[in-house]
Amino acid sequence: MTVPTTTRAAVLHGPQDLRIEELALPPLGHDDVLVAVDAVGICGSDMHYFASGRNGQNVLRSPTALGHEASGVVAAAGPGAAIPVGTRCAVEPAVGCGRCPTCRSGRYNLCPAGTCLGSPPTHGAIADHIVVPARAVHPLPDAVPTETGSLIEPLAVAVWAVRRADVRFGHRVLITGAGPIGILAAQVARAAGASEVVVTDVNDARLARAAALGATAVLNTADAAPALTGMDRLLECSAHPEALWQGIRTLAPAARATVVGQAAPAVDGLPLAFLQRWEIDLVTAFRYAHAFPTAIDLAASGRVDLAGVLTGRFDLDHTADALRAPGHDPAHLKVVVRPATTAP
Amino acid sequence: MTVPTTTRAAVLHGPQDLRIEELALPPLGHDDVLVAVDAVGICGSDMHYFASGRNGQNVLRSPTALGHEASGVVAAAGPGAAIPVGTRCAVEPAVGCGRCPTCRSGRYNLCPAGTCLGSPPTHGAIADHIVVPARAVHPLPDAVPTETGSLIEPLAVAVWAVRRADVRFGHRVLITGAGPIGILAAQVARAAGASEVVVTDVNDARLARAAALGATAVLNTADAAPALTGMDRLLECSAHPEALWQGIRTLAPAARATVVGQAAPAVDGLPLAFLQRWEIDLVTAFRYAHAFPTAIDLAASGRVDLAGVLTGRFDLDHTADALRAPGHDPAHLKVVVRPATTAP
Amino acid sequence: MTVPTTTRAAVLHGPQDLRIEELALPPLGHDDVLVAVDAVGICGSDMHYFASGRNGQNVLRSPTALGHEASGVVAAAGPGAAIPVGTRCAVEPAVGCGRCPTCRSGRYNLCPAGTCLGSPPTHGAIADHIVVPARAVHPLPDAVPTETGSLIEPLAVAVWAVRRADVRFGHRVLITGAGPIGILAAQVARAAGASEVVVTDVNDARLARAAALGATAVLNTADAAPALTGMDRLLECSAHPEALWQGIRTLAPAARATVVGQAAPAVDGLPLAFLQRWEIDLVTAFRYAHAFPTAIDLAASGRVDLAGVLTGRFDLDHTADALRAPGHDPAHLKVVVRPATTAP
Amino acid sequence: MTVPTTTRAAVLHGPQDLRIEELALPPLGHDDVLVAVDAVGICGSDMHYFASGRNGQNVLRSPTALGHEASGVVAAAGPGAAIPVGTRCAVEPAVGCGRCPTCRSGRYNLCPAGTCLGSPPTHGAIADHIVVPARAVHPLPDAVPTETGSLIEPLAVAVWAVRRADVRFGHRVLITGAGPIGILAAQVARAAGASEVVVTDVNDARLARAAALGATAVLNTADAAPALTGMDRLLECSAHPEALWQGIRTLAPAARATVVGQAAPAVDGLPLAFLQRWEIDLVTAFRYAHAFPTAIDLAASGRVDLAGVLTGRFDLDHTADALRAPGHDPAHLKVVVRPATTAP
Repeated sequence: MTVPTTTRAAVLHGPQDLRIEELALPPLGHDDVLVAVDAVGICGSDMHYFASGRNGQNVLRSPTALGHEASGVVAAAGPGAAIPVGTRCAVEPAVGCGRCPTCRSGRYNLCPAGTCLGSPPTHGAIADHIVVPARAVHPLPDAVPTETGSLIEPLAVAVWAVRRADVRFGHRVLITGAGPIGILAAQVARAAGASEVVVTDVNDARLARAAALGATAVLNTADAAPALTGMDRLLECSAHPEALWQGIRTLAPAARATVVGQAAPAVDGLPLAFLQRWEIDLVTAFRYAHAFPTAIDLAASGRVDLAGVLTGRFDLDHTADALRAPGHDPAHLKVVVRPATTAP
Repeated sequence: MTVPTTTRAAVLHGPQDLRIEELALPPLGHDDVLVAVDAVGICGSDMHYFASGRNGQNVLRSPTALGHEASGVVAAAGPGAAIPVGTRCAVEPAVGCGRCPTCRSGRYNLCPAGTCLGSPPTHGAIADHIVVPARAVHPLPDAVPTETGSLIEPLAVAVWAVRRADVRFGHRVLITGAGPIGILAAQVARAAGASEVVVTDVNDARLARAAALGATAVLNTADAAPALTGMDRLLECSAHPEALWQGIRTLAPAARATVVGQAAPAVDGLPLAFLQRWEIDLVTAFRYAHAFPTAIDLAASGRVDLAGVLTGRFDLDHTADALRAPGHDPAHLKVVVRPATTAP
Repeated sequence: MTVPTTTRAAVLHGPQDLRIEELALPPLGHDDVLVAVDAVGICGSDMHYFASGRNGQNVLRSPTALGHEASGVVAAAGPGAAIPVGTRCAVEPAVGCGRCPTCRSGRYNLCPAGTCLGSPPTHGAIADHIVVPARAVHPLPDAVPTETGSLIEPLAVAVWAVRRADVRFGHRVLITGAGPIGILAAQVARAAGASEVVVTDVNDARLARAAALGATAVLNTADAAPALTGMDRLLECSAHPEALWQGIRTLAPAARATVVGQAAPAVDGLPLAFLQRWEIDLVTAFRYAHAFPTAIDLAASGRVDLAGVLTGRFDLDHTADALRAPGHDPAHLKVVVRPATTAP
Repeated sequence: MTVPTTTRAAVLHGPQDLRIEELALPPLGHDDVLVAVDAVGICGSDMHYFASGRNGQNVLRSPTALGHEASGVVAAAGPGAAIPVGTRCAVEPAVGCGRCPTCRSGRYNLCPAGTCLGSPPTHGAIADHIVVPARAVHPLPDAVPTETGSLIEPLAVAVWAVRRADVRFGHRVLITGAGPIGILAAQVARAAGASEVVVTDVNDARLARAAALGATAVLNTADAAPALTGMDRLLECSAHPEALWQGIRTLAPAARATVVGQAAPAVDGLPLAFLQRWEIDLVTAFRYAHAFPTAIDLAASGRVDLAGVLTGRFDLDHTADALRAPGHDPAHLKVVVRPATTAP
């Protein structure tokens, strides 16, 4: 094919100002591939950018295409990219510079020079086409449909979270927050051999979904902290400090709490004396490293149900609706934009 | 010898109300030893009990002898205690129940049923004699004088802190707080192969002592946060949250911060987004497990200088003065009470 | 009940010389329980003692009751044993002295002073009653029948093997040997999240059983080494060095091989240059530590099928037949002796 | 400078057939540097190639310049190499492809596509000039003379060996073999906090050197196995299986043996039952990853004495003599070739 020089994309110009417009594509480098995008999941960070023009410390300063949870089909490949055209794939949106000590030590998710699709000013994947390095492309097996492949990225978040949490088989695991990441993490924790996976949230519809998709028990904590003791691992996926503090109180001596949900810059109320008395470790998970292959395997083998987490589809022209959907209906888990779909 | 049934001891009856009085000794059990106490170091926790009748969550509710940093000589041994009478020793004040899953897994410092000498209501070691289980007694080699042996306990705190911090050779280590634990931790970190050990404090006299005893650099942070980057490990030994937050800011990606100083129940200002962006782990150290043999070896080989940390001696009758001394003069590091010494 | 002072037991007097006779029971100590034995699995080590009067380095020098894979019901308890009479239980046959540094560090399976039921000269569990320390008794939940509880011991071997092998979710695992341990290890590896579990053996009936019970693939290696590459973990369960060497050749860089099957004192042909070129670790598993609770949970939740591994039952009078059965028919996996059963 | 297109080099054409001749230099790539070589240490592998035309599995099939332990001065740099001309440096001879999963996981020493200077058919560093990727160049601080910098490579071997051995402070360490690697490993183990470092060999001169350079004890094992027990770590640096087996017998339960010396393809006599009874891990070390910075720091700080290991110097024309020297005199530790030196 002739490699296109532009693409239609969902470009954010400012809070609530999303425009579907034509963007220049970067040239296809020696080790790059061009991906025809099939589906892009909407993440909380996309919703933050759309709502307020920022996400955490990162601020939108110039128009930027959103989206980093992408799947598609390889449409063209540079001479150094050994991936056949036509390969269905999930796209890893942040792969590090590959040269710094952090990357070379294997923790490329922490690369100080790293960029990520859809993190301003780097353009994202809600577009007809994107150009990415070949090492960002992970082929999908037959058992994973291309659309579902867009959920490999959040599943990789869950895989990495479970690795950082050091969940071992036989562990009793608490997951606070039954959003898409919490529910995927529950499935991954179960696949990793956790003997119990308790999921908490304040929304019964989400908890019902969690119960159907891997949790061995669910608890609505709208009115009370979870009455649990002796848990081995906590994965905090709600981004609420109170859930973190409550979760920590359920942990056994020498247990481990892992913050997965997006953290605030300064959080009050850390129960440090409790952590110290029981030597409970507090760790965090940021994106993922080396997690896509495991995520794809979990989806392909059926040990994780991705389709059950997908609750809405939008075409490119309705990207703004997709960005608003989870906020309008908390029962929504993951919605995707499908750029190649024609608006109805 | 005839095993005594009572001992003179420094018994706290309430805030500032310390009395030297005769206490009943427990009977010498099958696996117990009687130790004639030579020296007992004064710890910050002793000073808290003396000042306010409480330390952290633990409250003095009945008169209790203080002190848990003890050395002495074995004066009698139960039939199951294979330790010769006359053995000079350091005493490990908290050894766990030995039967619960936490103890059996090796983390006896976290035993839920554990007691500790000098933690009310358990009587402590500022006394002529104490009865302890044989497994709490660690013989001292010739190179460690008996009096100095009382500093094995704080050195064990430092050893465990360095283990929990996972200091590896070649690491750049920051230690916040140049009190006795900070200075001992600096020496241990250096012995563990740290290539740099930077110690911070707000007191120049303490910093000078740190510089003389193991730190490769010292910084007075009274006016400014430490201007460091890329540190591999932080050991927070000052018990000030601000020092913890400042220290965390100096750390490299995938680094580790360890809280050694006594933690408050609820601490504000946790820089959670920073921890998450760089996947910096926050862990804690509580007492020690399996650390006394290494501490004794470090002292015996001269790799750690204990005598340099010992800045004052008091007899039993002047225990209250010993408890006040470090507060009166911040240049004091460790003072000891020597029960067998006659008042001048 | 009146605590009995003797028990009927299957006592080995020499090679092939097994006698059912009355043995004195030790007195019930303060922390002991008396267990009415329900079922005892036959292990390869029992078969070695029966065949030759020795197992590895351990030699039968005085008549000894065999058997260490036991379940039963608590019939009496010493005053320090907080276990209700009537509790159905699995018995952990080797729990360490509890006092040495190895035990205190958590690795009680390596206790130098440790004994094990049925390892001469310690009497074993093929008996009407046994006296064991309370900490050796693990209650069985309703979902695990008492007879099946005798397989908790070999399942604990498999649990510990998978822990020592450091199987993580997503791993590709090779298990050489489709005997009871190999098949249980396959199930445990799968429960621990292995994405592939390939089991090899030279017997098709055993391989068919493995395929039915957790293996994702099976290979008959009678004529050829397994044609695999890039495996992450090897668990050698056949006790044949050639299987170990072949298995090692399938491993990826930085992988790990774990010897589970009983090892010979001196083994030739170690491919050390291959291990070194790829930094493949060679580790071993000996019994288990802290593994019974996880084993019981895996059985109770149905993640491991124990009943499928149980292929024969014998009463006490036919213990010798039980000891010969697996040798006569390699399709046998695990046979049990049921002391309380009347001979037909 | 004008980048030279050829270099004088010590090229091996066959066993004992070493020729000093002019070799073509590869073009200086975008990320490459040209190094004017100052010194190159002679390693056992160089001696094997020279003696027999092969080293382990690798066979000389075409004329190849030898040498991989190099230091020098950067003489030119490609546009992507941010290293000033004139930088004194040690050269890391094997840095991996940087793109495969093994490299990306941080274990670039195990890269299946990796090459190493002086491993046929890759030309080595005994030459006036070499071209290497910029990431292979490690600047030397003032405290490390350029010539000494050639010993950073064997020191990196020792650093990695101590890391793979997981030596922790307080450990008792046995090192078998008092050659250059053994003596450097002894110094590194000591720097990493080992409380005892016992070195064994059959040559008293080497043992005397070990005793002067970091060992806390030395033992001549010409006539007897080392009479030690309870050692925590073994580093086998002699490449003699018997030393490995003897060393393993000294280890404590749950200890770790690390093979550092070059391993043979098939080794007889593995004491597998002993390893299993005590769950002693057997691991290996291959080259190094991320070890040069720590090695340079250890040398610069004086914690490791490199000069004491350097026992001979040769100019380029006498490279063959350098390759024979250690064989002629076992008291030789490390000899270097200095290409820039004029023959006397």
